[in-house]
Parts: sequence; structure tokens; C-alpha cells
Amino acid sequence: MTFYEKLRSIQRKNKSLLCIGLDPDIRKLPGSVKRHKDPVYEFNRAIVAATFDLVCAYKLNLAFYEALGMRAWECIHKTLACIPRGIVTIGDAKRGDIGNSGEMYASALLDDFGFTATTVSPYMGRDSLEPFIKDRRRGAFVLALTSNPGAADFQCLRVGRRPLYEHVIERVGKWNTQRNCGLVVGATRPKEMKRARELAPDMPFLIPGIGVQGGDLKLTVRYGCDARGEMAVINASRGVIYASAGKDFARAARAVALELRYAINQHRRDFL
Amino acid sequence: MTFYEKLRSIQRKNKSLLCIGLDPDIRKLPGSVKRHKDPVYEFNRAIVAATFDLVCAYKLNLAFYEALGMRAWECIHKTLACIPRGIVTIGDAKRGDIGNSGEMYASALLDDFGFTATTVSPYMGRDSLEPFIKDRRRGAFVLALTSNPGAADFQCLRVGRRPLYEHVIERVGKWNTQRNCGLVVGATRPKEMKRARELAPDMPFLIPGIGVQGGDLKLTVRYGCDARGEMAVINASRGVIYASAGKDFARAARAVALELRYAINQHRRDFL
Repeated sequence: MTFYEKLRSIQRKNKSLLCIGLDPDIRKLPGSVKRHKDPVYEFNRAIVAATFDLVCAYKLNLAFYEALGMRAWECIHKTLACIPRGIVTIGDAKRGDIGNSGEMYASALLDDFGFTATTVSPYMGRDSLEPFIKDRRRGAFVLALTSNPGAADFQCLRVGRRPLYEHVIERVGKWNTQRNCGLVVGATRPKEMKRARELAPDMPFLIPGIGVQGGDLKLTVRYGCDARGEMAVINASRGVIYASAGKDFARAARAVALELRYAINQHRRDFL
Repeated sequence: MTFYEKLRSIQRKNKSLLCIGLDPDIRKLPGSVKRHKDPVYEFNRAIVAATFDLVCAYKLNLAFYEALGMRAWECIHKTLACIPRGIVTIGDAKRGDIGNSGEMYASALLDDFGFTATTVSPYMGRDSLEPFIKDRRRGAFVLALTSNPGAADFQCLRVGRRPLYEHVIERVGKWNTQRNCGLVVGATRPKEMKRARELAPDMPFLIPGIGVQGGDLKLTVRYGCDARGEMAVINASRGVIYASAGKDFARAARAVALELRYAINQHRRDFL
């Protein structure tokens, strides 16, 4: 099954474009999991068990795991092991390096950990992307237009008559011969997301920036989806996983995830 | 001591612009170290012991360590612990992320491991760089013009009348208020390196691409150094650390490092 097929299939099965970001900040974990030997894993396990029928993907931001030091590797492995097979797993590492180094990053993420997809920075060009898209069963979301203020510094610079990120989208479209490339497009810039979807009608978009960062959900669904109302992967992290700081954190996360999935599906219905 | 001061000081003390890349590929290690319990560390330890008076810096490409899985963290710690204090250590991770994630990457590299400097990707803009340059004792080399063919894909696109990488250099120059920013400038494009040095007369350049990638050493020294013939950090990895596959690998690495330092210093003399 190709990456695109896997994504489409789980989005249909779970009727969901929602991706939950498993970004566990050790300082924010509920007291009830802090007692465990491996609190981060215990937290992730509980969140996954409470939400796996409501999502199309889980995204692990590697920064949060590297902060664990030597326990990082094991914690990622154990977390991935408790996610049901059909669900897409995204190793959000924003890597990008060449030759041997690129190969090794890709191998660590895709072979060793076994993520379905990764996030990749485009700055070093095609050869830095290649190790991540060799296998058509695995995908790579290339940073195009991110949701942070700094996106304006370089991504929006005009190259000819169009901003840099449009050139990134166009080139990635050309390199997408195996149909396993996606794009990261932030929810904080709906007008630009519309344009991105016009340039890349088929590619999956990984969309951060709803919730705390303030992206509009309705516009995100309208402009982020493909013509069939699919292929948007709408990420929510803090709003879901820290919905409650009490013992009921997993149940509270499920309630928020249910609401988000419902809200997204309502908006899909509106414009399809 | 600020990052710039530390770099200048060790370059003078060891009369060296040479940086050795400790990028140990487990498949290429000499048989004599493979017997050890921690062969990668044993390899690094021997290379450092044989060369520490000949270099200004050691660079660890994190990709090679992530490939070690759960032993990565310990191996990096142990390797850094055997590098004498005055020498600059570079965590070549090419990270770049925002908010919490950026903070966590920076904290893992600078606080936990204690690298003197890191490499950072500019694509996400200023807020993704900030966590890496908060502390003026620690530096960040921002990817400007890399040594790979893919550098042409985006870095060389014209923004107005100048290529994108010149805009990166200019912006980083503005953000460099603490004087701890540097640039990655590949040795494979001497003409562009000359221009980069004109735009950033004081910033340290981390220069990959001599050796296997074919960059010209003479032009690298001429264009990569500042007006005093310093602040170029010329990286060599495979050519040094795999100089011999036998028991004498450390001695062979020393011989190559000596030659390289000498060749670099000859070229410095030529143009100063």
C-alpha cells in the first residue's frame, strides 16, 4: 500500500482528518502518570488508547523526545508499538541533510523507528529529500509555508513574481514521481493555503497551527482538503493532550478529539 | 568568553583552522576497535587523542549517532567528555523548529550535551534560530550555501537581483546582535564564498566540501578566512578519520591532519 493509499484509507475508516501531536512535555504531565517508571510512555499509551478510533495519524515531534536524553529511543519505540497498524505515524523531525547523513537520518526514522512519514526541510534541495522518498510506502511532508511569524523571513520572499514557498511546492510536485510527497502548510495563513492547494491539488497537507496558534478551522478544512474533502492532516497537540491535568486526562483528551473530529467533518460537509 | 573569542583563541593556540568531523560509520570502523564494547566511542577517543593539538574544532554529525539507536546519547556524551575544554565542539544537527520544539532541540544540544555550537537551517526564519543564539557563549552556524548539488534548487534562486543565500547571510547578519552567529558555506563554490565573505566580513564560516567533495583548498582559505586569516573552520571527515583501516588508524589520522593543517597554513601565509 502506498503512502497516499494508507492515508486515504485510514481517513475514510475513522472518518477523520485529525492528527494528534504526541508532544509530551515532562513538566506538564498529569501527576497520576508521573509515578510510572516511564511516565512519557505511560502518558502516550493512555492518550493513544483513548483516541485511536478518532484520528488518521499521530505525529511525534522528535524535539520533545530528544529532551529525554538516553530514554528517548526506547520511548519512541514503545509509543509506536502501541499505535494500531492502519494509522499513519509521522516522525516530525524536520531533518534535511545530504549523502550519508541524509541516508542515516532517513534510515533511523523510517527503518529503525518505522514511521510512516517524516517532515523534511527543503533548504538543501532535492538530494536532501531523496532518502526520505525512496520507498513509496513512506511519505515525506516538506516544509512549505509554516505557521510561525518567522515564515515571513524567507518563505515569503519573492522569487520572480511568486513567493519562495510556491517554488518549493512546484519543485516538490515535480520530484513527486512516486506519489509519496506531502507539504507542511500552516493554518495561520488561509489565503496562502488556498493558493498552495491550487498548486498541489493531490498532495497531502500536514497542517499545524489550529488551536493555540489561532488558525481558523473552517478555512483550514475548506482550503486544506483536496477536491474530495480528504488529504488534509490537521494537527492538534496541546489542546488535546493537556485537556485535563487530572487523572481523567485520557478521557478529557478523547472528548476534545471527538469534538474536533466532529467540527472538521461538519465543515467538510459544508463545502463538499 | 564569547563564542567568537573561544574560536579565535583556539585557532591561535593550535595554529589551526582545521575541524575534524567525527562521523563514525559503524560499517567502516577498523577491526581493532570493533572488539570494544563501545566501538564508536573507542574510535572517537583514539582519533581525538591523536589530533587534539592540531584542530580548532571537532564536529559531530548527529545523523551518524542517531543511527546507533539507544546507545547514541551515551556515545555523544562520552565523546564530548574526552575533548579538551578549549576546543570548539559543533553539534551538526541542522535543526530548525519553533516555540517549544526549538527550545528543546537547543537545550538538548547546548545544555544537555554541551556543544559549543550547532548548525541550524534557516527556512523557518528568525524565531527558529533564536533558541540557538540566546547564550553568547554558544554559537550557531546557519546553513547559507551548502556544498551539495541540491544547493542550486532553492539557495541560488534569485530574490530580486541576488540569490536567496545572500538574503540569508544579510538577515543573519542583522540578527547577530550578540556576535555568536556563523554561516555554513560550502567549499565547492569559491566564487560564491568570496561574495559571502564580503557580505559577512566578521562571521565564522563552517566550511564543508574539501576532500571527497572536491572543494579547492587554496581558494577556500583565501575566500573563507576573515581579513586576519582566521574565522574559517575547515571541516574534513572521511579523509582524516578513515586514513587507514588498520590498527594504525589514529596515527594515520594524525598524519593527514598534520598535512592538512600545514597546507591550510601555507595558503594563509600566501595571501596575508
